[in-house]
Amino acid sequence: MQHNKNHNLDAAIVLIGDEILSGRTQDTNVSDIARFLGERGIDLREVRIVPDVEVEIVDAVNALRARYTYVFTTGGIGPTHDDITADAIAKAFNTGISHHPEAVKMLKSLFAEIGVEPNEARMRMARLPEGAELIASDEVKAPGFHIGNVFVMAGVPSIMRKMLKALAPKLKTGQVVKSISIRFETGEGSLAEPLKQIQQQFPQVSIGSYPFVEEGLYGSNVVLRSRNESLLNKAAEQVKTLL
Amino acid sequence: MQHNKNHNLDAAIVLIGDEILSGRTQDTNVSDIARFLGERGIDLREVRIVPDVEVEIVDAVNALRARYTYVFTTGGIGPTHDDITADAIAKAFNTGISHHPEAVKMLKSLFAEIGVEPNEARMRMARLPEGAELIASDEVKAPGFHIGNVFVMAGVPSIMRKMLKALAPKLKTGQVVKSISIRFETGEGSLAEPLKQIQQQFPQVSIGSYPFVEEGLYGSNVVLRSRNESLLNKAAEQVKTLL
Repeated sequence: MQHNKNHNLDAAIVLIGDEILSGRTQDTNVSDIARFLGERGIDLREVRIVPDVEVEIVDAVNALRARYTYVFTTGGIGPTHDDITADAIAKAFNTGISHHPEAVKMLKSLFAEIGVEPNEARMRMARLPEGAELIASDEVKAPGFHIGNVFVMAGVPSIMRKMLKALAPKLKTGQVVKSISIRFETGEGSLAEPLKQIQQQFPQVSIGSYPFVEEGLYGSNVVLRSRNESLLNKAAEQVKTLL
Repeated sequence: MQHNKNHNLDAAIVLIGDEILSGRTQDTNVSDIARFLGERGIDLREVRIVPDVEVEIVDAVNALRARYTYVFTTGGIGPTHDDITADAIAKAFNTGISHHPEAVKMLKSLFAEIGVEPNEARMRMARLPEGAELIASDEVKAPGFHIGNVFVMAGVPSIMRKMLKALAPKLKTGQVVKSISIRFETGEGSLAEPLKQIQQQFPQVSIGSYPFVEEGLYGSNVVLRSRNESLLNKAAEQVKTLL
């Protein structure tokens, strides 16, 4: 697939998750965030899944925040000993960490509402790196935050999705990539040469061929993607002649 | 979660996949490979998802193959113009690429069997980096291969799983990590302090707390993992007293 080098709104994701690396949990956050970014014209360029180990989180976040417009992390912002994301992000930004007044207020009000004690572990969740701002909304009662170009979210999918909604106004948006998917119920081998020629003819359109096997049937979804809808349609017309 | 630094069989995955980064496709290969490795006592330590761009594949593979015992890639080994994995791996190993006699034979026999022409695009799939060996079996008719500590597999999940089975005998195996999962239907905030104390008491057991929200209920799965079953059971007994 060709990539438009001139488009400069891009992003990476860091999943902080021993539970994904152990195979116990099937991640769904990547596809949710990917679609969210796609709708805003932001290109997701890389994902890293790292264990709940501080140096790994720091290294991944620092490598990616220097490289992409935005970095999104999920996981590790709860009250237990294995929730080390806020500390790791503070270390990545070489800054301190302390109880954030707005987060303290939000959590105290939440704990009063649900009738649990604001114990030390729970209030630890109000610790944010210096300079961070809460990702807050009426729907979000967990301490997601952003600092610089890094957005730190919960790992639980339903909470993560609310945080995405809450942080959306903070993101720049770009022109959305349009896509057309064409299903071929023949193997890729017959399509390869003509598809290559169409790709060469339309360098502004990314043409990918994604094979599948369904009940012994070999097929392929050919997906065309471009920010130029007119060229996209022209290229798709040509691909359809291969059907 | 604590990691045993003495255990040195570990691995990383590189998913090569524009279709995953676009959010169009939900990946399942990571969890399949993770469980496969877990059953063999190999620790999955990192995953990277990169686009179908040569330099990105080369950089990820080279960073990870220097660091971990094994690297597994999925995707990009078909016959179409966007299938660039074999070339990228050759570049990563700074070696040439050419039609591999065994791969040529396997593919010709397959194409004869299913009655398709062995055209140039199809036979391009027989190109492997110099020094690579096919990942072959009676079940696998696609050109997966391994070179050094890197295993290159198909992206289609059903084919990928057959390749895992075929390559299994080539891997060293270690002592399997045992795990015990305990479900708490209370929020993590009440567990945090006692869990931390149990974690401190059992440094050889990794204790993770993975929160969930189900129909408004906040709960957590506490997962204990260790290669030492006796310590694992002792730590689990202590965690169960918190129920």
